Amino acid sequence: MRIGIVGVTGFGGSELLRLIAGHPHFELVWVGGESSAGVPLSKRFPALASRPEGGLTIERFEPQALPAIDLLFASLPTGGSRQPLAQVAPQIRIVDVGGDHRFTEDWVYGLTELAQQRAAIASARRVANPGCYPVAAVLALAPLLQHGLIEPDGIVVDAKSGVTGTGRGGASGFGFAETNEDLFAYGLAGHPHVPELRNALALAAGGPVSLAFTPHLVPMNRGLLATCYARPRGRIDAAMLADAARATYRDAAFVQVVEPENGRGPRTGWATASNYAFVSYAFDADCGQVIACGAIDNLGKGAAGQAVQNANLMCGFPETAGLTGLPARP
Amino acid sequence: MRIGIVGVTGFGGSELLRLIAGHPHFELVWVGGESSAGVPLSKRFPALASRPEGGLTIERFEPQALPAIDLLFASLPTGGSRQPLAQVAPQIRIVDVGGDHRFTEDWVYGLTELAQQRAAIASARRVANPGCYPVAAVLALAPLLQHGLIEPDGIVVDAKSGVTGTGRGGASGFGFAETNEDLFAYGLAGHPHVPELRNALALAAGGPVSLAFTPHLVPMNRGLLATCYARPRGRIDAAMLADAARATYRDAAFVQVVEPENGRGPRTGWATASNYAFVSYAFDADCGQVIACGAIDNLGKGAAGQAVQNANLMCGFPETAGLTGLPARP
Amino acid sequence: MRIGIVGVTGFGGSELLRLIAGHPHFELVWVGGESSAGVPLSKRFPALASRPEGGLTIERFEPQALPAIDLLFASLPTGGSRQPLAQVAPQIRIVDVGGDHRFTEDWVYGLTELAQQRAAIASARRVANPGCYPVAAVLALAPLLQHGLIEPDGIVVDAKSGVTGTGRGGASGFGFAETNEDLFAYGLAGHPHVPELRNALALAAGGPVSLAFTPHLVPMNRGLLATCYARPRGRIDAAMLADAARATYRDAAFVQVVEPENGRGPRTGWATASNYAFVSYAFDADCGQVIACGAIDNLGKGAAGQAVQNANLMCGFPETAGLTGLPARP
Amino acid sequence: MRIGIVGVTGFGGSELLRLIAGHPHFELVWVGGESSAGVPLSKRFPALASRPEGGLTIERFEPQALPAIDLLFASLPTGGSRQPLAQVAPQIRIVDVGGDHRFTEDWVYGLTELAQQRAAIASARRVANPGCYPVAAVLALAPLLQHGLIEPDGIVVDAKSGVTGTGRGGASGFGFAETNEDLFAYGLAGHPHVPELRNALALAAGGPVSLAFTPHLVPMNRGLLATCYARPRGRIDAAMLADAARATYRDAAFVQVVEPENGRGPRTGWATASNYAFVSYAFDADCGQVIACGAIDNLGKGAAGQAVQNANLMCGFPETAGLTGLPARP
Repeated sequence: MRIGIVGVTGFGGSELLRLIAGHPHFELVWVGGESSAGVPLSKRFPALASRPEGGLTIERFEPQALPAIDLLFASLPTGGSRQPLAQVAPQIRIVDVGGDHRFTEDWVYGLTELAQQRAAIASARRVANPGCYPVAAVLALAPLLQHGLIEPDGIVVDAKSGVTGTGRGGASGFGFAETNEDLFAYGLAGHPHVPELRNALALAAGGPVSLAFTPHLVPMNRGLLATCYARPRGRIDAAMLADAARATYRDAAFVQVVEPENGRGPRTGWATASNYAFVSYAFDADCGQVIACGAIDNLGKGAAGQAVQNANLMCGFPETAGLTGLPARP
Repeated sequence: MRIGIVGVTGFGGSELLRLIAGHPHFELVWVGGESSAGVPLSKRFPALASRPEGGLTIERFEPQALPAIDLLFASLPTGGSRQPLAQVAPQIRIVDVGGDHRFTEDWVYGLTELAQQRAAIASARRVANPGCYPVAAVLALAPLLQHGLIEPDGIVVDAKSGVTGTGRGGASGFGFAETNEDLFAYGLAGHPHVPELRNALALAAGGPVSLAFTPHLVPMNRGLLATCYARPRGRIDAAMLADAARATYRDAAFVQVVEPENGRGPRTGWATASNYAFVSYAFDADCGQVIACGAIDNLGKGAAGQAVQNANLMCGFPETAGLTGLPARP
Repeated sequence: MRIGIVGVTGFGGSELLRLIAGHPHFELVWVGGESSAGVPLSKRFPALASRPEGGLTIERFEPQALPAIDLLFASLPTGGSRQPLAQVAPQIRIVDVGGDHRFTEDWVYGLTELAQQRAAIASARRVANPGCYPVAAVLALAPLLQHGLIEPDGIVVDAKSGVTGTGRGGASGFGFAETNEDLFAYGLAGHPHVPELRNALALAAGGPVSLAFTPHLVPMNRGLLATCYARPRGRIDAAMLADAARATYRDAAFVQVVEPENGRGPRTGWATASNYAFVSYAFDADCGQVIACGAIDNLGKGAAGQAVQNANLMCGFPETAGLTGLPARP
Repeated sequence: MRIGIVGVTGFGGSELLRLIAGHPHFELVWVGGESSAGVPLSKRFPALASRPEGGLTIERFEPQALPAIDLLFASLPTGGSRQPLAQVAPQIRIVDVGGDHRFTEDWVYGLTELAQQRAAIASARRVANPGCYPVAAVLALAPLLQHGLIEPDGIVVDAKSGVTGTGRGGASGFGFAETNEDLFAYGLAGHPHVPELRNALALAAGGPVSLAFTPHLVPMNRGLLATCYARPRGRIDAAMLADAARATYRDAAFVQVVEPENGRGPRTGWATASNYAFVSYAFDADCGQVIACGAIDNLGKGAAGQAVQNANLMCGFPETAGLTGLPARP
């Protein structure tokens, strides 16, 4: 399959480049960008110099003038992809890693492990990749909602992300010295991921879900952890929670249910530079709260990895093609 | 006042050393430690070489054979201070920075801003410093409980701490390469701070409180953020929450109520290497959740700074003596 | 003394604010900035809210319309201070933390420990603070040149700095994700600090000095280490090197000569958030190279701390006033 | 080929595991360790749970009782591999990632790009992998020595490494809080890599080489930069230096010669989690110093990547098999 990436110099686009360069069935034939148009790709990615992709030049994105490609990964700033992607020829499949098409008719929401979605993705030509926060939270909570183990209201999702989750661009606010040795909550007035979270969880619950969501910026490059709190529905215990998740993810190659060890949940480092996701469950009987953790690499399962997983399905390849690289840790 | 510190080479003890060296009324005359006994203090703290404290040698801690000191700061590993501190002469005041006396009769719980506590501390000779997590969470939540703005049950405290909050010792688990670029929840099976949190919040609420508490380890040296979720009691709005906190902290020199700006809560970096604390409030009307944030330096207001604040009160000095240093950021 | 700071929101300016707020003889009465003009100072430094300095507003810098101040600290971007500082009334003393006046007639080069400079600074009204790299390298090398223990040519200065040494502004190049987990040499084509280094070392050597200088950017906020290599002059050993430094710094309150321990040189963390500097010496007899290390906090002795030290001298205060705060480590 | 790894839980061993899991011709059939013997491999590497290697258990290393494997990677603590590896059956090929056999007769020194070595490695059954510091320094300097462009004495190698370069074990000294925001030189009294460096450079120079070597510990997980200084031999310019390197590395798939851009040398981040290496050259005509930089991932080309490259040669596979993964950055 001939592949293009637009937005190749952003964090998500760079990770797509890495994954596609190692993919057995994808060949990168076109890369696009805005500020970097005209620059040889190997100038931005020095390791490419001795490889075939190193011969590419970053092109200006003219959606109607794309070369003959089979699939386009779009990793554009939020708000910037609706208009241009509408002009891409319909025979070119698109995975939009950005946030503009997650509620758009004719686009399929591409979180593979949401049961109904895998089949829908496989037959789609336009797939909207999920946001990184929803991936972690939905993977952790969906099994509990599906199995009716938690109440669908009063859920709290407290999420923590490394800096690449914010996208490149807002550099001034996320300079090294301002971000290192610091930590804060944002989106307190309402984060754009809330409606997406609510929608995705409603798919799992089969009905409306209400939740509070607070993201935090953590001084690390990659990694995203969603710590989720919910009230139990009926009499439950921790084993029931993990069993439900194991049932849900029986055939999911990338989602692993782990038992807390010495009270510790999954570590984001377990997923670094990979498409793996880890979920764990605890039940605090004293206060009656279920605690579900979901850990991913925000650029992996939270962005580029999930996008390649979607592309594999759309193209009829095994879902895991090019995605079985182990995490790089440390 | 003649001051001693036992446990001076630990994270908390080192910060006490720094604060006492800069204190207008305290003179450091004795330092103790276990593994470092016999070592010149300036060997561990090279900047001391040209200063008077640099002449001290770290002594073995023999509680009955202390020199003539007026006050002892004890920063010993949890579980290790009960027996020795019981043997310290009664005329020597003690602030125990560790966790062994927080529920002990005859010891006063030293979180200054809990209204009843300031007076009790001022007349105490034995003060148990609060844990770092409770400081941040209680400062954020107490005003809401005091003013009856939130329900006292179903509270969620999701807290994130830098590595010095774990104390020195468990080094093997918190090596640089294992901790950097990583993030995880711990204490899922129940953290020792939960009973302390419950007790302290009950003081504010005037009745029992139930909560889920999940601490997280964040790859930074200092800084602690508690993000707290609670259901509102009656009709409330964000302004009522902040107003309640401003009323509670009207006379508190170190606690500042800040408005979220662009949806961002207080940053732990605002407090680095200082005794300041920051709280902020939001109300998510959609899901009916109050979100209260408390940000501190875990070694400052969360340990050594609070300990000096207590010592000031116990000795009749202004509460702020030696504590008005501005944060070092970045 | 009534003090003003222009450039208060930069890294150097912020550290000046911290030092002046804790200074026994300085009162901050005016703060200026460019992009932040009109903003209340406490907006940028939340801990100020409950303190007198918190009432200040950041003013536009109009050099001819300054209020009645005794001394101005100028921390402006390189290239931007010559013209405005020329217009400041002569009775206002100035310490320029930036790099524009280090070779200007009528300005005194303010590296206190260079023997001739202390007296010159004390009688100056215009002092150019040294660059952070020269401070570390000159403190390490000057004693050896003064005592004729190394050859004045063929010197190599390999220096490593935390990110705040680069100044605020070039944020795009020093975003968190681009800088964390990364390391590189810069200034390979010639760094602006080279002539300053050469001049300052020539003062120590009493003749011309030739050297290669390579700075590196290290993923940390603060800290600067200069590792310097030189050929010995005559028969020497490591003890002679350290003895020379001890003689040079006999009366220097902030410079400490330390012996390498287990082959380790001084750590930048020993100096964090302080005005202390550490130098150490080794002699590799096998290859005939002297290795001198100088470790400082680039914002402390490398910028704001040195600036306050200069201001103390200029105002007739003890050199150490307001500067004896111990390092905050970790 | 059936592969074993002993020392699989160390930093080097873990990276070997990652590389072998993605290798087209290698199958991991045995893993060994000391403290972790008896532990399921997937307990230490959670992402393995759904993969075939996840079924392995970490075995005690009994060198005479290994199963039928074709090649063993040994990543044991320095000093611990001589005796056990001597007992491994001769038909099992060995790559020793540790430092014990770098000067041992009958073992080939496995730095592939040293011209004579590639052929020697291809026919060897015992290969000693080079140290991480020598890899970076030798790749940078060897072309200049080979082409007679620098003098072979008076060389300075100032090297900086991330924390995984120190090996797992000395955790107490390299705890997160003690290492983060800190920087220091070590090995000032003589680092064990010096003789290895001297030997390897002598191979390139065709005669004895003398040098000063100072390693530094940098607060990052991975990455190693060697900044090397040497006096030019005859009239040279920067282009001659880079041309020599391009000639030397004409057929080297993993070593790239880059031009300094805006005076910046190669970044260690360009190599993270890959086997790529970058060298750059500058000539400071003012002081007559050649400055050569070599940047690698200390766990990649500096350890596990180089080890797999050697194993490929030893087994008759293309040198690049399993090693063409692009760097993960950020």
